[in-house]
Amino acid sequence: MRDTVPNWLEQRARTSPGHPALISEGRAITYAALADRVALVSGRLHRLGVRRGVRIGLLMGNRPEFVEILHAAARVGAVVVPLNGRLSPVEITQQLVDCAPRVLFHDHANRETVAVVRQTLSLPVLNVECDPREGEQAFDAVAADPDESATTIDLAAAHSIIYTSGSSGRPKGVRLTFGNVLWSALGSAFNIGVHTDDRWLACLPFCHVGGLSILLRSVIYGTTAVIHNGFDPARVDRALEAERVTIISVVANMLQRLLDLRGTRPAPPWLRCVLAGGGPVPLALLQESRVRGFAVTQTYGLTETASQATTLAPADAERKIGSAGKPLLGTEVMVWGADGPAPAGQAGEIFVRGPSVSPGYLDPADDTNRQDGWLRTGDLGRLDDEGYLYVLGRRDDMIICGGENIYPAEVEAALQAHASVAEACVYGVPDERWGAAVAASVRLRAGWMATVDELAEHSRRRLARFKIPRHIEFVDDFPRTAAGKIVRSRVRNASLRRNFSWSSEG
Amino acid sequence: MRDTVPNWLEQRARTSPGHPALISEGRAITYAALADRVALVSGRLHRLGVRRGVRIGLLMGNRPEFVEILHAAARVGAVVVPLNGRLSPVEITQQLVDCAPRVLFHDHANRETVAVVRQTLSLPVLNVECDPREGEQAFDAVAADPDESATTIDLAAAHSIIYTSGSSGRPKGVRLTFGNVLWSALGSAFNIGVHTDDRWLACLPFCHVGGLSILLRSVIYGTTAVIHNGFDPARVDRALEAERVTIISVVANMLQRLLDLRGTRPAPPWLRCVLAGGGPVPLALLQESRVRGFAVTQTYGLTETASQATTLAPADAERKIGSAGKPLLGTEVMVWGADGPAPAGQAGEIFVRGPSVSPGYLDPADDTNRQDGWLRTGDLGRLDDEGYLYVLGRRDDMIICGGENIYPAEVEAALQAHASVAEACVYGVPDERWGAAVAASVRLRAGWMATVDELAEHSRRRLARFKIPRHIEFVDDFPRTAAGKIVRSRVRNASLRRNFSWSSEG
Repeated sequence: MRDTVPNWLEQRARTSPGHPALISEGRAITYAALADRVALVSGRLHRLGVRRGVRIGLLMGNRPEFVEILHAAARVGAVVVPLNGRLSPVEITQQLVDCAPRVLFHDHANRETVAVVRQTLSLPVLNVECDPREGEQAFDAVAADPDESATTIDLAAAHSIIYTSGSSGRPKGVRLTFGNVLWSALGSAFNIGVHTDDRWLACLPFCHVGGLSILLRSVIYGTTAVIHNGFDPARVDRALEAERVTIISVVANMLQRLLDLRGTRPAPPWLRCVLAGGGPVPLALLQESRVRGFAVTQTYGLTETASQATTLAPADAERKIGSAGKPLLGTEVMVWGADGPAPAGQAGEIFVRGPSVSPGYLDPADDTNRQDGWLRTGDLGRLDDEGYLYVLGRRDDMIICGGENIYPAEVEAALQAHASVAEACVYGVPDERWGAAVAASVRLRAGWMATVDELAEHSRRRLARFKIPRHIEFVDDFPRTAAGKIVRSRVRNASLRRNFSWSSEG
Repeated sequence: MRDTVPNWLEQRARTSPGHPALISEGRAITYAALADRVALVSGRLHRLGVRRGVRIGLLMGNRPEFVEILHAAARVGAVVVPLNGRLSPVEITQQLVDCAPRVLFHDHANRETVAVVRQTLSLPVLNVECDPREGEQAFDAVAADPDESATTIDLAAAHSIIYTSGSSGRPKGVRLTFGNVLWSALGSAFNIGVHTDDRWLACLPFCHVGGLSILLRSVIYGTTAVIHNGFDPARVDRALEAERVTIISVVANMLQRLLDLRGTRPAPPWLRCVLAGGGPVPLALLQESRVRGFAVTQTYGLTETASQATTLAPADAERKIGSAGKPLLGTEVMVWGADGPAPAGQAGEIFVRGPSVSPGYLDPADDTNRQDGWLRTGDLGRLDDEGYLYVLGRRDDMIICGGENIYPAEVEAALQAHASVAEACVYGVPDERWGAAVAASVRLRAGWMATVDELAEHSRRRLARFKIPRHIEFVDDFPRTAAGKIVRSRVRNASLRRNFSWSSEG
């Protein structure tokens, strides 16, 4: 296999210069226009001393400047580190110390974080927006060196460092190569297809792989990314129609909010795929989606696999309810039991292998999750006899109650099968007799009612006795990652403080 | 970049077992069924001593057995050599001596060739059909070894050896790797798209890369190949409807015959792409196709590039009439002039570079067409100022008349712009004064009339004086390759014998 390919943006600028690469705020940016901007930005990066292998931090929303810097970095060979603006300045500072970028780019919205960061770090900082404040340096004001950057892409080279959401501990910097990125795009393409008029709506943040990969796929396919800075259901709703969006990536909660907002209106006929990640989609939501013409494709992915690793086709969505489907082209999935591959139906740790899997973490001390070429994901799951993957949750989230293993996802699915339940988050709380007891925080659907006793009774009809939640509380919403995933550890800690009169770091 | 990926057929058999892999003679063969057959065939190959790196010859039509052996070879690591049943037994024998396969597989239709081959070669020969004649060995009767073949594909490994059509001299054995095959599939996918319900009709022979690549793409994409043994317009016409074909690969002549047969019926709405290779499509045919809803995508490809290298999108089909479009993802095209890259508009030799380009020929003595990592194609062409490629023909076909370079393709396009002309083939004939003169053999459209004087006058209005054909003859049809391409050298030789009272090996 050759190790270099022509730069994909430049190739698209040559082959389809007038095709929209991006649509942002209703404005289309063609491949030719994007490539011109990227050539300019490459020259500015060069002027700033950004060279092959040098890291650059991006602390900004989903905006065209992010896309320009992303592609310009590929030209000069720099490694992008997208940072999550929802983290605290202290957390951002920790990540910046960890990855040591040559320069940090930000937008107005992240000014305050940047100001705090600069109190401890002497890093050069540039604002990508055009009207900087006193004391800020504008990226636009940097004179561009002549653009002499590479026109080929080295597939073995580092593309980006993406920090995990940290939902299972300290965020780890995942190294992704151009080869990882390419294979991820291929696997997705040969699973959900590529239509030349595709427009993929990115309302997931670019600091996570679920959002970032939309940009990368689109440029590889030569299709269009529609970018939204954050998830606003009303704006998404308008974009589906006005921008003729054909694919959208969401987490279940976003899909529910979108359906609620649209009322009885069916899906637009051109919306051919709703890619739902970040956890299983509740059955009621799947059914509602189907009735209204939203073709939901469920997916299981990790930062370490450069996004999707498995997906469930819409045709299987209800027959295989709760499954994350099957591996993408190039990817292999195995479930590792007590001392070897688990037989069908038996739970174990999910192992993934393939060309989209990251070569490792930024900190080699984090590279403890490899086994004979496989990535140990830390997620628990099982394969059914047809090879469909069911994700049971994080290994660390497993509740051991009187010697029995309880997977929160299974209990959550049972709770969510209740018509009134929008979302449930299940976790273990200390129990003197059994070691741990099952507890649940539940968010009801707007305008629907349920009592704790009713949900307990509902659970009794669906679950083994030891899995029934002993404690149920109602909440208005959950703490979430930037990608919209519920952060179980924070739900649990809040619940312990509220309901059990103690705090815990568990 | 990782060098191995899971076997793509097995992956498809796992992820979409019930999806049709092939449709042959109206019968659908699912991915699960195909993988089962391939496991059996792999065991038989193993029993026959076929191992990694061993070559096997395939002398048969477009039939499921070809597909089974193709995929089984990938499992055991063998290299397939598809042979062209339209060649003479002597030519086939030469190729078999050249590539030295461990075993030759054939069907009933190639019995006579095989019988002649066996008079000179002692190669093991097996008939893949189930009712062999006395003295023939049936592949079906070979006991299968237990299937222990590899489940991964090494992208750097040899996949196949494909002989060039020999339209420009002795056929050369082109080595293609799995990486070449994969990149070819990717380039095509991100150009014309992949729809999960695609059905690609293969009526081009599998012994040429244009037909073979349909099988390879389909299994990589997880879509369906509809296979026809030869081009029969009536059968293709029926299949478009009955099998809901979405893509078809053709040469211009096939497209014309198909349109003629269909009369006024428009294209079925699901037929989204007609991929036309083997030379430019005449303007009249393009216009007729457009009016009737056939979306023609013109393409330029070589065996050495594992099929398509550039394609012209339907949207550009008329604006860029005669162009073969732009390079596919990963591929680069350059036109090499007298002593360096030619400026826009200027003719030169077409150079191609990229991950789908063959690493070389079977006979290293043929490896004379490389230059600084580029493949010198031997084709002449030019790039316009927007980067669209125009193929002017084989360098060896160029006519030098009084010091002027004349490209047959240009003269042919002018002749074919006449309403009565179906096809034209232009070549040089010896001329005492100018060194060479332009001559043309012309096939008129059925039921249309034209005289030599009329075509000469028509040419005068379109071409520079020195390009006007001095000799025009009418023919009923042309000698063609198995893929349907006109063999210019044979047209010229026949014309020389008929009209100029001499024979030539030129």
